[in-house]
Amino acid sequence: MRNCIIAQSGGPTVAINASLAGVISENITGHFFDTVYGSLNGITGILDGRVLNLSEISSSQNDFIDTLKVTPAMYLGSCRHKLPAISENSEEYKKIFSFFDEFEIDTFFYIGGNDSMDTVLKLSDYARKIGSDVKVIGIPKTIDNDLIGTDHTPGFGSAAKYIASSIREIAHDTYIYPVKSVTIVEVMGRDAGWLTAASALARNEYSAAPHLIYLPEKPFDIEAFIEDVQKLLKTNNSVVVAVSEGIRDKDGNYISASGTVTDNFGHQQLSGAGKALEGIIADRLGIKVRSVEVNILQRCASHLASLTDLDESMEQGRKAHLLSQAGESGVMVVLKRTSDDPYLTETDCLDIHKIANEVKSVPTDWINPEGNDVNEKMLTYLRPLITGEPKVRYENGLPVYLSVEHLTSHII
Amino acid sequence: MRNCIIAQSGGPTVAINASLAGVISENITGHFFDTVYGSLNGITGILDGRVLNLSEISSSQNDFIDTLKVTPAMYLGSCRHKLPAISENSEEYKKIFSFFDEFEIDTFFYIGGNDSMDTVLKLSDYARKIGSDVKVIGIPKTIDNDLIGTDHTPGFGSAAKYIASSIREIAHDTYIYPVKSVTIVEVMGRDAGWLTAASALARNEYSAAPHLIYLPEKPFDIEAFIEDVQKLLKTNNSVVVAVSEGIRDKDGNYISASGTVTDNFGHQQLSGAGKALEGIIADRLGIKVRSVEVNILQRCASHLASLTDLDESMEQGRKAHLLSQAGESGVMVVLKRTSDDPYLTETDCLDIHKIANEVKSVPTDWINPEGNDVNEKMLTYLRPLITGEPKVRYENGLPVYLSVEHLTSHII
Repeated sequence: MRNCIIAQSGGPTVAINASLAGVISENITGHFFDTVYGSLNGITGILDGRVLNLSEISSSQNDFIDTLKVTPAMYLGSCRHKLPAISENSEEYKKIFSFFDEFEIDTFFYIGGNDSMDTVLKLSDYARKIGSDVKVIGIPKTIDNDLIGTDHTPGFGSAAKYIASSIREIAHDTYIYPVKSVTIVEVMGRDAGWLTAASALARNEYSAAPHLIYLPEKPFDIEAFIEDVQKLLKTNNSVVVAVSEGIRDKDGNYISASGTVTDNFGHQQLSGAGKALEGIIADRLGIKVRSVEVNILQRCASHLASLTDLDESMEQGRKAHLLSQAGESGVMVVLKRTSDDPYLTETDCLDIHKIANEVKSVPTDWINPEGNDVNEKMLTYLRPLITGEPKVRYENGLPVYLSVEHLTSHII
Repeated sequence: MRNCIIAQSGGPTVAINASLAGVISENITGHFFDTVYGSLNGITGILDGRVLNLSEISSSQNDFIDTLKVTPAMYLGSCRHKLPAISENSEEYKKIFSFFDEFEIDTFFYIGGNDSMDTVLKLSDYARKIGSDVKVIGIPKTIDNDLIGTDHTPGFGSAAKYIASSIREIAHDTYIYPVKSVTIVEVMGRDAGWLTAASALARNEYSAAPHLIYLPEKPFDIEAFIEDVQKLLKTNNSVVVAVSEGIRDKDGNYISASGTVTDNFGHQQLSGAGKALEGIIADRLGIKVRSVEVNILQRCASHLASLTDLDESMEQGRKAHLLSQAGESGVMVVLKRTSDDPYLTETDCLDIHKIANEVKSVPTDWINPEGNDVNEKMLTYLRPLITGEPKVRYENGLPVYLSVEHLTSHII
């Protein structure tokens, strides 16, 4: 018997299930593995025996692959579990590899972000160390787009499309009153500004919103910000600002309103960069101001996913399957862009040691000298990633996703 | 010459332009009016001479009606202007009616919510008082669904669809970790709980989210809320709560965290019910908790509009045109439901004196006795309103809406 097991980890994206669908559908075609297992809640499902027979589940449901492809978040659940260093404690490693033995696992596929790639690195190192034949292959995902070695990560394009579409719609909302106003939109991305940069795609021939864009890659200067806004208010009624949640001042301190905030129930409130800038504008300029925290929908709104993103994510799942057939281990699937226009990419793989625990920031020469916008290099990079609309099925007016009910009842 | 003028007022919805499209397209068909004018920023455009020739603009652009129908917010801009009582000050009335004379206006159509219907009432009363033949007709819109005399208001169905879809997607996001957590989703609706109630439509065969729903129509009891959450946490990992921004305690005080909140820039912060409940759960239960303020996208996300809503909104614009032809004035277009299943409605009109300045609340017998959910009566009412998806055109991965650029350059 030759089996494989797949798990998902880290924060949700709308594309992480497309990669899962890619691995499963490649096996439906090629039957390389006798059984595809799934581990619930990432690596922890293997550790505490919560494992499913995905081959069985997928073949028993109509449209399983198509619906899985557009279902947000993790079908198999997630975890935030970090394996200890092998040298410190090998207990969990022994447990995992004893599971691999028992279930005749040939390959472990791990779909996730930076932390998950650390797990891929450690497990593949351990396999080598103990002379195990088990292959460990990473499939990337993160809306933050901060994994190195790949052109961009699954999940990013859809989140970028959500941000750009939302800002376009918010712009229409802000244009209706003939009074001066500032709208601050806070976007996810603690360390890398990729997603905030994608707000620039919202601009069209009649709307320059967002008028200002601030990323964590450049120090944020409050006085320069006030000046930027004041200058724009001379010619615009409505100024829309996109700001990363991770903006910091020149000393590296987060711009946030969290410091001394307590509510009337005595609870310490954590408020982000958007709220902080809202307060600054209100105090200093005394004009109408609103901050909008684009909430968790930016990572789970499958109804507005990028088809390019979902297709590429599925393709990277398939590629992982092919890499296993080719005997690769200790690698992550990567995407190489061979042309911007027409947009062309190839899948490949890279040694996990070159990827794990690194962060890909926005190159500073993709940001304008004033630090309040991105330039054409960034736009050329971003444009192809948000194109295409997947066929999401609607029933009674609502998008239909894959049921996660009773998944635990399938535990072997 | 027989002309008409249209204006839009109040807060944005995704359906208010569909009603505008309805009036214009009905005139394209029937040519009842020689020219359809538009007033920028509601009634204030008439007061200060910012008026456009909509017949000309609409005939000069391809797909004008179709694109206008799906464009969010107000194509003509909005205002929050309240006319003084006629007895107090008639200056503005004289100005408005002298404009009507000059432009040979036969009918003034005003698309808006409660405040706009107050304007319709006052202008039609004034016309009667001075013996003017000018007709004044109101076309409703509000995501709050709080106008009386009509089954539901344009804009509500789309906002309801956005809320229900978002909560379904948020539910997927919250289910991924096997740890106890509470997610509080704050929905717009200061005085009426209709939109928060629509969150109940998110439920399906695998997800009971939102597990709790609190509307402003019933006093909010913090101790009962804590008990409700604790009870659910015994059987659920993830508890999702939908709460109206307008919930109040038994003494009528808003449940909000605004009281003593100041940030580290010394600015007084206003935080809503969601943040307040987040603080309460963190303090009292000490578990993972997050609050999500469904932001202004609930009123401007045209990409997720309800086709039923847009079609009905357009139909109500057409009906207003027909009412004018029939010589009606001082009325608002209303929608009467004749059957729930199959869902059937008829347009009609009602004397504006029976509508203006009243608020339609959720009937208390549509809320469960515990005050933490809605019942089947509410669901039967809501279900048809969110069905159908409009054809929104995408270009380069983003929804295409009607340009508002240079609209002011068309001012006559």
